[in-house]
Amino acid sequence: MRTQVAIIGAGPSGLLLGQLLHQAGIANVIVERQSGAYVLGRIRAGILEQVTVDLMAEAGVGARVQREGIAHHSIELVFQGTRHSIDVHGLTGGKQVTAYGQTELTHDLMEARAAAGLETVYEAADVAVQGFDGERPQVRFKGKDGREQVLQCDFIAGCDGFHGVCRASVPRRALREYEKVYPFGWLGVLADVPPVSPHAIVYGNSERGFSLCSMRSMTRSRYYVQTAMDDKVEAWSDQRFWDELRRRLDPELADRVVTGPSIEKSIAPLRSFVAEPMRFGRLFLAGDAAHIVPPTGAKGLNLAASDVKYLSSALIEHYREHSDAGLDQYSARALARVWKAERFSWWLTSLMHRFPDTGDFGQRLQDAELGYLVGSRAAATALAENYVGLPL
Amino acid sequence: MRTQVAIIGAGPSGLLLGQLLHQAGIANVIVERQSGAYVLGRIRAGILEQVTVDLMAEAGVGARVQREGIAHHSIELVFQGTRHSIDVHGLTGGKQVTAYGQTELTHDLMEARAAAGLETVYEAADVAVQGFDGERPQVRFKGKDGREQVLQCDFIAGCDGFHGVCRASVPRRALREYEKVYPFGWLGVLADVPPVSPHAIVYGNSERGFSLCSMRSMTRSRYYVQTAMDDKVEAWSDQRFWDELRRRLDPELADRVVTGPSIEKSIAPLRSFVAEPMRFGRLFLAGDAAHIVPPTGAKGLNLAASDVKYLSSALIEHYREHSDAGLDQYSARALARVWKAERFSWWLTSLMHRFPDTGDFGQRLQDAELGYLVGSRAAATALAENYVGLPL
Repeated sequence: MRTQVAIIGAGPSGLLLGQLLHQAGIANVIVERQSGAYVLGRIRAGILEQVTVDLMAEAGVGARVQREGIAHHSIELVFQGTRHSIDVHGLTGGKQVTAYGQTELTHDLMEARAAAGLETVYEAADVAVQGFDGERPQVRFKGKDGREQVLQCDFIAGCDGFHGVCRASVPRRALREYEKVYPFGWLGVLADVPPVSPHAIVYGNSERGFSLCSMRSMTRSRYYVQTAMDDKVEAWSDQRFWDELRRRLDPELADRVVTGPSIEKSIAPLRSFVAEPMRFGRLFLAGDAAHIVPPTGAKGLNLAASDVKYLSSALIEHYREHSDAGLDQYSARALARVWKAERFSWWLTSLMHRFPDTGDFGQRLQDAELGYLVGSRAAATALAENYVGLPL
Repeated sequence: MRTQVAIIGAGPSGLLLGQLLHQAGIANVIVERQSGAYVLGRIRAGILEQVTVDLMAEAGVGARVQREGIAHHSIELVFQGTRHSIDVHGLTGGKQVTAYGQTELTHDLMEARAAAGLETVYEAADVAVQGFDGERPQVRFKGKDGREQVLQCDFIAGCDGFHGVCRASVPRRALREYEKVYPFGWLGVLADVPPVSPHAIVYGNSERGFSLCSMRSMTRSRYYVQTAMDDKVEAWSDQRFWDELRRRLDPELADRVVTGPSIEKSIAPLRSFVAEPMRFGRLFLAGDAAHIVPPTGAKGLNLAASDVKYLSSALIEHYREHSDAGLDQYSARALARVWKAERFSWWLTSLMHRFPDTGDFGQRLQDAELGYLVGSRAAATALAENYVGLPL
């Protein structure tokens, strides 16, 4: 087997990259460890920056997000029992984010890939990426039939997530890793109930901890509450979750919460992580394979999209114009945006959560910052411009 | 002895309060533990917000600061060897700060007080404030002649600084204290050399630590470098100081540093501190007696001035309009502004210093925040509006 770009991972990054390359006439094969159904079933992010929506249109998969995505023009912040609206749209000169589940986006990309007849190898076992430090990189794996396959290529794109094989295949000494683990988790519930706030994400900071109200559609809601690091999902009945969520909101919003059985319920840790650089010879990392943000700022999927934008442009420039300038700049360009989003995600996480070791002074500083934020146009604009996504 | 308002402490807060009260026809006596020469000799802050300059004019001591104060329209930030200018004046719609030494301000106020023939008791020993929980507060002290004096009054204003007797006289259970001590100190040098940057304070963040270049006049400079907590001033020759300062600046600025013998050289710790409330019956705390900020944001003297503004207005309202509304609101009003300035001072301190326990991830976040700050109009405006002083 031979292709121009071998893409490891059939999540949104890999699928989006494949689509953009295909549209530019660049052959690509995706190799994915899991089944298509598994990838599609993963419940993840749901807030898209305009940059991401634009990129979907560029990739030819923009029709449904345009039709069904729900524009959010503001953010709601609840603290000390009171709700404050940040007019993101007004503060950024008309920008917005769009609520559209990652599973929907993945679905659109899978359909487009199937329609174009592009090859995706699902359930590939023992995937190995090799030779990327030389001229002839290759991907080895076992197909569903158990036979060993070798995929020859010009470049490998590592879109295989935090636990993927690509970053793990880079020599330790060539990587610098930065990490922060937060001292709490998020308990998330997905339920087929109308969202409590259909046109804005609600971020709550209460004495009981953080809460977040988001949505996938007008009939499907995604809610979270901050939990202790060692909390177990089994300890959280649906009833306990709904009760806790209500206690962390302002009274009006708490009254508006419609409850229902959870479709999905899980606890996830919060982590900040960056690996540098994002390129090793002919291997390029994109998305979660290179960096993780805590979900507070909804930046994970959007950073993956901007990585893919930079990487696809660089690969297109390589094949069309025989210039490696874009490839050579890829890591620095991507990391510049990554670190800004890491900072924002860390800041918003720090602002909205209760930290066990904050102490009285730290808590009062957090209160003061929240008060300043909703009272200062400049501070609110800084939040808003990061929330809609900094320019590429 | 009897007066209307007994003021403890003849620093800038006490003197300014005395002047404002006198102008409104309210009798006051200042009781100070130190000599006038000692108070005048203390080297402290030198950057005045417009609110403070306006208050000096209101107190009838605005002529010299108007004439000799040096307007600063911008801030310079040096990091990664490059200098960036923040156009404070432009970003705040024409606001500025004024460089004018605290000793000059104290001098102006002492002169005005002497000219008005107002009483200041210097070198008062064993000062005690009593009865402020009832109707008849009094101040007891021993005069220079060793004789015990009792000053009867309606109110006591505690303008006697962090180590003063006023806060220490409040029952422990009535006070809530918040504190943070930073893991480094500032080594400061005062020298009669022209300032390296005559129209803007320079804040430097280098791998070697923080540095600050400020000024008292066109011929007197005030410079600082961050030092370890346990560093001793004896270990710092003038030469070592100048060498270290230059290493922490960008090359152009380093070349411009004019050196000379130090007039004053000392190491100070950095602390954030707030005591709540700021009123106990007929005792009112103002300035450092109630709160301390690290000097990074130049907010200490300015917060003292806004406390005095709120307190003088409330006392004038009490005597003129027989309303205690202002006195009742004093603590909450003052603390609202204090906490905003505490947040800003903590934030700027965190942004510009090297912390021993930051770690690699934290250091990269600091770098990212500095990069974002100088690249975002919104973020720079948030810095600027705090730097010139939030509205009263």
